Amino acid sequence: MTRREPTKRELYPHFLQLQTRWMDNDVYGHVNNVIYYSYFDTVVNEYLISSGVLDISGGEVIGLVAHTECDYFAPLSFPQKVDAGLRVERLGGSSVTYEIGLFDPGSDEAVAVGSFVHVYVDRETRRSTGLPAPLREALERLTTGGTG
Amino acid sequence: MTRREPTKRELYPHFLQLQTRWMDNDVYGHVNNVIYYSYFDTVVNEYLISSGVLDISGGEVIGLVAHTECDYFAPLSFPQKVDAGLRVERLGGSSVTYEIGLFDPGSDEAVAVGSFVHVYVDRETRRSTGLPAPLREALERLTTGGTG
Amino acid sequence: MTRREPTKRELYPHFLQLQTRWMDNDVYGHVNNVIYYSYFDTVVNEYLISSGVLDISGGEVIGLVAHTECDYFAPLSFPQKVDAGLRVERLGGSSVTYEIGLFDPGSDEAVAVGSFVHVYVDRETRRSTGLPAPLREALERLTTGGTG
Amino acid sequence: MTRREPTKRELYPHFLQLQTRWMDNDVYGHVNNVIYYSYFDTVVNEYLISSGVLDISGGEVIGLVAHTECDYFAPLSFPQKVDAGLRVERLGGSSVTYEIGLFDPGSDEAVAVGSFVHVYVDRETRRSTGLPAPLREALERLTTGGTG
Repeated sequence: MTRREPTKRELYPHFLQLQTRWMDNDVYGHVNNVIYYSYFDTVVNEYLISSGVLDISGGEVIGLVAHTECDYFAPLSFPQKVDAGLRVERLGGSSVTYEIGLFDPGSDEAVAVGSFVHVYVDRETRRSTGLPAPLREALERLTTGGTG
Repeated sequence: MTRREPTKRELYPHFLQLQTRWMDNDVYGHVNNVIYYSYFDTVVNEYLISSGVLDISGGEVIGLVAHTECDYFAPLSFPQKVDAGLRVERLGGSSVTYEIGLFDPGSDEAVAVGSFVHVYVDRETRRSTGLPAPLREALERLTTGGTG
Repeated sequence: MTRREPTKRELYPHFLQLQTRWMDNDVYGHVNNVIYYSYFDTVVNEYLISSGVLDISGGEVIGLVAHTECDYFAPLSFPQKVDAGLRVERLGGSSVTYEIGLFDPGSDEAVAVGSFVHVYVDRETRRSTGLPAPLREALERLTTGGTG
Repeated sequence: MTRREPTKRELYPHFLQLQTRWMDNDVYGHVNNVIYYSYFDTVVNEYLISSGVLDISGGEVIGLVAHTECDYFAPLSFPQKVDAGLRVERLGGSSVTYEIGLFDPGSDEAVAVGSFVHVYVDRETRRSTGLPAPLREALERLTTGGTG
């Protein structure tokens, strides 16, 4: 287990702003460690849906989550907003590894950095399958840094 | 149990926009009924915190939730945003009843309307207590309609 | 809005025990008001699935949640367990109103009582529809009190 | 990032059974990847509380979550129960790495394995601090395998 370093905004080509919720805070008054993964999950799927490459009910392929992880550097607290930055760290034949950086709106240094691995399988056979071309194109757009 | 009617935006003096999360959707592809209450909870506490009248760790009084309810008129779905409108329906000596309307960003008719009752108690004795003056003032500002 | 009274266990013919989760507690150290509804949602659907009358992906009818509400009488806290009691309060032609009582495992008096209204519609047309016979039979078994 | 292998029950000296919730399932009908971390969080804190070594409001030290990760091998679905097994993988001077295995009640092979790192700090100064003796003793009891 190697610990990541906090990243900068410019690394991420796509961002989504999230509103924290009262319930996100745990008894210590900070966003609970579990909730960070709902931010990851949200920015990944929002990107896929808004890119038109995620067809939840009818697509021939499904992305199964094989691995997720997160390094926590600084707390988040309701009622703040959170900027979730998304990039593709590694694009394989049938899988993709996303990296997500979470940022305070006023800061350039991530408070948490995580990764999220989707393995694509055929909806029927559940066997590993290649990425459809439109999905691959959408993911390639996330392989180079943004402008912050 | 009387069912409310969908309300309009102009009824609510305060709004907060929320980003739905992937996990909010249930197996039917719509935001789960439980999640609506996290939107209610969030707009109420965000208003109190941003008004400077909620001191989570040190305040002398605490608002206990005594009752909540919701009427659902139309579905919400990730990845849409949701506008949560907040007003005070009834302001008592030691309690307040909020009404919350949830709206699609592009629509003037609520998709859900709910209420949320806080009863204020002394932090130590847990006995019912009057509302501190600054809290009462903040709540009075929510008793008249907004401009939508 | 009329406030219910705490109920007793004997009122409920079906029970499910739930394990609270760390994340259920909010900053005040008690289970957050929102989470109670996930307990309601869970015992209702668990009953329907274990009775063989909920076919999530293929059924011809769908239960839409039209109304939910909850009266809170006493707090719950992680790591305790919670017993969720379920009964049918009212069984209509195309709708059902459940009542749920939540109990501390060692107590006979509910810490919260709520209701949950399902309106059944045709999956395709989304028009109100009668309850299928097996569903109605399963619900009728919940209309009389249990043995506690 | 190295992928773990599914583990066996005998590896874990402590278990907690959890009831899945309706809301845990996502649109694909399986427990969402985020929720696995709430199971991790729950078994860790339940062990600490039941061992008498977690004093949420008054303890001199606080465990900050520094890293979490999970490998997913097979799906979980509501309404099933889940057995969460807990062991200590590494016990450092001021930190502890837990490993959690999640199991179907009827199976000896984990459906998911994850880790969870707590770094202990002084509540006031937030500086890294040694583990109090009672906490260390409770954690040492988790360093050797259970009986399954």
